[in-house]
Amino acid sequence: MSMGASTKQGYEIAEKSRKIVRSLIDSKTKNLTPEERSIVERIVHSTADPEYADITRMSKDFVGESLKAISDGKEILTDINMVKVGINKYEGNIRCHIGDEATIKLAKKQEITRAAAAIELAASKGFDGVVAIGNAPTALWKVIELVNSGSMNVKSVIGVPVGFVGAAESKKSLQETSIPYLVTEGPKGGTPVAVAAVNSLINILRSE
Amino acid sequence: MSMGASTKQGYEIAEKSRKIVRSLIDSKTKNLTPEERSIVERIVHSTADPEYADITRMSKDFVGESLKAISDGKEILTDINMVKVGINKYEGNIRCHIGDEATIKLAKKQEITRAAAAIELAASKGFDGVVAIGNAPTALWKVIELVNSGSMNVKSVIGVPVGFVGAAESKKSLQETSIPYLVTEGPKGGTPVAVAAVNSLINILRSE
Repeated sequence: MSMGASTKQGYEIAEKSRKIVRSLIDSKTKNLTPEERSIVERIVHSTADPEYADITRMSKDFVGESLKAISDGKEILTDINMVKVGINKYEGNIRCHIGDEATIKLAKKQEITRAAAAIELAASKGFDGVVAIGNAPTALWKVIELVNSGSMNVKSVIGVPVGFVGAAESKKSLQETSIPYLVTEGPKGGTPVAVAAVNSLINILRSE
Repeated sequence: MSMGASTKQGYEIAEKSRKIVRSLIDSKTKNLTPEERSIVERIVHSTADPEYADITRMSKDFVGESLKAISDGKEILTDINMVKVGINKYEGNIRCHIGDEATIKLAKKQEITRAAAAIELAASKGFDGVVAIGNAPTALWKVIELVNSGSMNVKSVIGVPVGFVGAAESKKSLQETSIPYLVTEGPKGGTPVAVAAVNSLINILRSE
């Protein structure tokens, strides 16, 4: 498991970290598949917060559907650019429309957040891949709304928005859909969690 | 406090969040200046993790030196691109050399991490501003080493690398220098914490 390392020193640090992370959360990840376990380990590595082993939840079909989509080179859609630039070893297309002129206009017109407008724009332009939401609950609500109304195709959703207003509720709603999901229950989450989940999936494929 | 919001809906969410954050950490921030308090509040808002009110520490000169540097339009240097793209309202130059060809070569030659090599490259090209380290302890060690040897000028350092290997120690070392600093004690930290600190400083200046 490279944990994002690209030099000998980086690998040594990653290997030490891997052992510490495993010792901290070993008992909590016993019932997971090896793939699910490596995803949770990478999230804890990236946040230095073992609580993520308690709050990370995946649907049974999440790993399979996500690996298939990534292996097929499907697009990855992110809510903000911090998630986009953190995914650094994907050969497929990574999209983020938060800074687009059309997003800013759409947000004003519909009186919604830019993060939500960016998702709507992606769906209207055509999308069929993996969604990674690391910041905005409003973006996750929009994904759920568009998928439910048949206006957006997604293979899986990494839904880890963060915050005290709407984040927990939006993740609970995602869990009630039939979309393959990864969430972090409660207010916690964030861009490093979304990035860790995506990079871990990519790493699983590269290690096969 | 805009908390990064740019639409009416975004402001409403930010305002709700601000009240929740304040209620959660009010007693812990009583001894801080108004500026320090708004920085800590933004970090907790960005992570949904009230523990950051306990572990965030600033030197007495951090806010003053950082505000002066940002107000003077000094450069901001980040360890990885996730921090760079998260700073979205700064009119000055934001640098990150992690992806430079010269960084990759330097890392191999010196057998150091790319994050550390990127700092060395910045210093060798000339730097004089605010450093924001959100990920790599090795980058923070490099900043401390270069400042101590007189090879790098910094106005202040936001040192919030994350992880179980070296992060806590690197932050402790920063606190022992005379560099104006913000750190998160222990293993926790991360790119959203670095981004929150910088954006909060920018916001303080914009609100004046």
